[in-house]
Amino acid sequence: MSQSQSQPRNTQPETSLMSRLTALCKRRGFIYPASEIYGGLNGFWDFGPLGVLLKNNLRDAWWRDMVLCPPLGPDGEPLSIVGIDTSIIQHPKTWEASGHVGGFSDPMQTCRKCKKLFRADHIEDMLGDAEWVKSFADAMKVGAAGTLQLGGFLTGQTPFDGVAARQWAQKQGKKAAPGLALVRNPAVTLSWIDEDMRADPAKTFSFMDLLRYVATEQKNVTGLQTPCPNCGGDLTEPRQFNLMFESRVGAVEADDDSGKVYLRPETAQGIFLQYKNVLDTSRVRPPFGIAQVGKSFRNEVTPRNFIFRTREFEQMEMEFFVPPEDGMKWYEFWAAERMRWWKDMGLSEANLFRHEIGDGDRAFYSAATADIEYKYPFTAPNFGELEGVAYRTDYDLKQHQTFSKTNLEYIDQENSRRYLPHVIEPAAGLTRGVLALLCEAYQYDESRASPEWLKLKPSLAPTKIGIFPLVNKDGMPEIAEKLYLDLRRTYTCQYDAKQSIGKRYARMDEAGTPFCITVDGETAKDNAVTIRDRDTAQQERVALDQVRAYVAKKLTD
Amino acid sequence: MSQSQSQPRNTQPETSLMSRLTALCKRRGFIYPASEIYGGLNGFWDFGPLGVLLKNNLRDAWWRDMVLCPPLGPDGEPLSIVGIDTSIIQHPKTWEASGHVGGFSDPMQTCRKCKKLFRADHIEDMLGDAEWVKSFADAMKVGAAGTLQLGGFLTGQTPFDGVAARQWAQKQGKKAAPGLALVRNPAVTLSWIDEDMRADPAKTFSFMDLLRYVATEQKNVTGLQTPCPNCGGDLTEPRQFNLMFESRVGAVEADDDSGKVYLRPETAQGIFLQYKNVLDTSRVRPPFGIAQVGKSFRNEVTPRNFIFRTREFEQMEMEFFVPPEDGMKWYEFWAAERMRWWKDMGLSEANLFRHEIGDGDRAFYSAATADIEYKYPFTAPNFGELEGVAYRTDYDLKQHQTFSKTNLEYIDQENSRRYLPHVIEPAAGLTRGVLALLCEAYQYDESRASPEWLKLKPSLAPTKIGIFPLVNKDGMPEIAEKLYLDLRRTYTCQYDAKQSIGKRYARMDEAGTPFCITVDGETAKDNAVTIRDRDTAQQERVALDQVRAYVAKKLTD
Repeated sequence: MSQSQSQPRNTQPETSLMSRLTALCKRRGFIYPASEIYGGLNGFWDFGPLGVLLKNNLRDAWWRDMVLCPPLGPDGEPLSIVGIDTSIIQHPKTWEASGHVGGFSDPMQTCRKCKKLFRADHIEDMLGDAEWVKSFADAMKVGAAGTLQLGGFLTGQTPFDGVAARQWAQKQGKKAAPGLALVRNPAVTLSWIDEDMRADPAKTFSFMDLLRYVATEQKNVTGLQTPCPNCGGDLTEPRQFNLMFESRVGAVEADDDSGKVYLRPETAQGIFLQYKNVLDTSRVRPPFGIAQVGKSFRNEVTPRNFIFRTREFEQMEMEFFVPPEDGMKWYEFWAAERMRWWKDMGLSEANLFRHEIGDGDRAFYSAATADIEYKYPFTAPNFGELEGVAYRTDYDLKQHQTFSKTNLEYIDQENSRRYLPHVIEPAAGLTRGVLALLCEAYQYDESRASPEWLKLKPSLAPTKIGIFPLVNKDGMPEIAEKLYLDLRRTYTCQYDAKQSIGKRYARMDEAGTPFCITVDGETAKDNAVTIRDRDTAQQERVALDQVRAYVAKKLTD
Repeated sequence: MSQSQSQPRNTQPETSLMSRLTALCKRRGFIYPASEIYGGLNGFWDFGPLGVLLKNNLRDAWWRDMVLCPPLGPDGEPLSIVGIDTSIIQHPKTWEASGHVGGFSDPMQTCRKCKKLFRADHIEDMLGDAEWVKSFADAMKVGAAGTLQLGGFLTGQTPFDGVAARQWAQKQGKKAAPGLALVRNPAVTLSWIDEDMRADPAKTFSFMDLLRYVATEQKNVTGLQTPCPNCGGDLTEPRQFNLMFESRVGAVEADDDSGKVYLRPETAQGIFLQYKNVLDTSRVRPPFGIAQVGKSFRNEVTPRNFIFRTREFEQMEMEFFVPPEDGMKWYEFWAAERMRWWKDMGLSEANLFRHEIGDGDRAFYSAATADIEYKYPFTAPNFGELEGVAYRTDYDLKQHQTFSKTNLEYIDQENSRRYLPHVIEPAAGLTRGVLALLCEAYQYDESRASPEWLKLKPSLAPTKIGIFPLVNKDGMPEIAEKLYLDLRRTYTCQYDAKQSIGKRYARMDEAGTPFCITVDGETAKDNAVTIRDRDTAQQERVALDQVRAYVAKKLTD
């Protein structure tokens, strides 16, 4: 499905939407590759001047709606939620208790030829993208999705062209896939394939199967091999690779494991570690929440899709502690509330999907989990994760209670009982949230001065107001600067006196700025300015002393 | 000098001020030790519900005054400063260029007996605090600052009591300082000291010298030894220990150095890496600034003084890029402006000190540096660093230009020249700023319901308003809750209906809440409430429809 079907306003083809968005983000200072002057660092991105404002606005909206002014609960009373900010580095036992040391890993395979490592479940996708595979597919005259018959091809009985395969191996393959069995030893590889296939000449194979055949030199010894996406070489068996970044704390020798620590892979565990302190020092009791925004780190094997899967990212997580018998009720509350919230941030209903995770696919301790998914351009027509709402039962508190030998029970004096609260966790990605906002906001309209523009919700837009003197003389700059100095105390403003007014509008549209105020030749006489609306491109004449009220009203609409 | 001299309102002695403040911070949920249920992790602290609000308020004040609404420059025009948010992990070449790989290290000494490591320049201080040293000083009947004569003491000719030393070594010393030469081999140690000292019976020694003598078994072989603060054993020669936390990125084998990265020890370098991108994508030109708030990490050998020296902390750094010839002018501007800002945050003039770093003590590339120092309780009567304002010349850009082979010059078209801008860096500690605010705010007054209370600047206080029904019946809770639901949309409020009104005031005073609003029996009739001022404990009757205006005015006073 092309992107234009779900977003008909974009007249350009889907394939380039992410690259256009990435380019816009770089060009306008939303997001840059980290360490770009040193060639970049895979999986790390920096937020530029506009990006950090957008990200802070989303962060602050979450914090306001979670901590400063939490929603009303099912009974109409405001919920009790407090904030916290815990360290990225915690005692290493934390991650034993949480299960991350033992279980937070991906299956990895190494290429025996070029030594590269790959996440096992990403290899087929990566083969689909690999240049050498495309080159081989061309030589075989087959698309990646095609099937073909292999049997007896060396004698010319089938559509598979052994001569072309050998030619490719000796020419393009030598450079593109030096590790591939077919390239290293075409005679042996082709002859055993021929022999092996003769037995069943009518059998059909997918192209992926063919890749496995040509990657295998001695099938009797090794079985079919999956080729390395980089060089075509053979891969080791999958082994588990832990995704936590490791470091060492304290002045310890390099070979001493006693100081080993991890960068947190999620902010949630810091909340569980301090749950008892919060209970003892704040006036909270179940049901109550503890919320945190902060960085987490995962040593992803294959970071990709712009800022969707990065190695350093920000989360907005809240753990909501409830009496065990109320778990499902609060799970339903939070799954619905979080979906509502993302819509309130400007994501359209059509691009959001509540994905109820089935019994077999949830973590073993979770009684229910719903992913709130967004239709990113690179997942469309499917959806990708934006937030997870998990009913984690009392798993985490129980684990930390056991590992720390600290009683973490809540003493419910009213009901003369003690219990470990159950936990509902709405865990959102701040970095992914910014990506979803940008994808949603991206507009393409060739009839505008800037065909690309960002239709961000005004309260989230990095810059709220552009302020321009129509021309840079005749007293206009003085009035515009005065207005700027006043408005910037409340709103993020950008003063711009350069180039034509149309170009200035276009710049603001690209930045997603909802309002542009122009001081013109009439202003000195009528004490009024024009305010242009980003979305409609319509202008209104507004009295100078009404500008604040006008903007304030529009921002709360 | 006792703390009470500089802060006469605190009637309690200085020695316990930090421990009382630390206890208050824990008790009221400002700051907890990280991973406390696992025994803590030295040098790591978590911010609790009140602490994170206070920290965010300081962070947001800095961001507002730097990025959203920067100050006016010397010419009366608002300065041009943009924000950024760069990754904690950057390309490792970053830290070669910045000099951190080669030079960001402390001299370390290891104890050959107990294997502990110490920062060489902290050892004397730590000896002064060590229990075994105090015990030995008692046995020698000498204060830590005392001097004494040693010569010929074994024959009883001097004040030094060799018999007492031997007794101490065989009794208390055995347990307290098992590694000390005097303890391990008192006969030899005392006899060579005696022999060595006989030569000059009138010579006087500091107690620290005495410690070195009793730590030395064979002076002819080793020279005088400094004892280990932990066990009294002998220490290795100092060697350099790099303070950067290391990690590895990507799926690399444990013994493969190719993926080695560092956690940033300062946020500044991320700004230099993106300086060119900002220049190319934002409408800025020198003089302009790039500001960033974020975490940094330093593997401090001896973290101490609560959150003053921690291993994970937050910085608020701004790099201000100027034409080379204007460097000193802007240095003066920022040193003065930053001092003004900290006063505006509520730090008193008497507790702030601008420490001009002399020529010999600055980094070699810095043309001028001023530390803005605060009189912390643990440094008083001296001052400790809060912010550094450094004129770094073009050192950083030049280094990155060389290491990245990327031209980082600014092309000044107006003046037909190109140059590397010079940089002024006001680099403040957010974590240290919170500590300074807490130290400044801490009040002790036994005449109040809560003798300990926090006189925080109202706009920085974690909770702005406490809202109480005088009694939890007779319609008062309904009015109070309605008021709470209205005010919490704008201000951080706490609703509290428990215990006596005096206890509720006391709780709010401890939290630094500037205003307490009480709904009483009259409210239903006169539509008014009492508002109590934290600092004066005075109450005013204010009409319900005037409450917002009252609070808004007080917060901007």
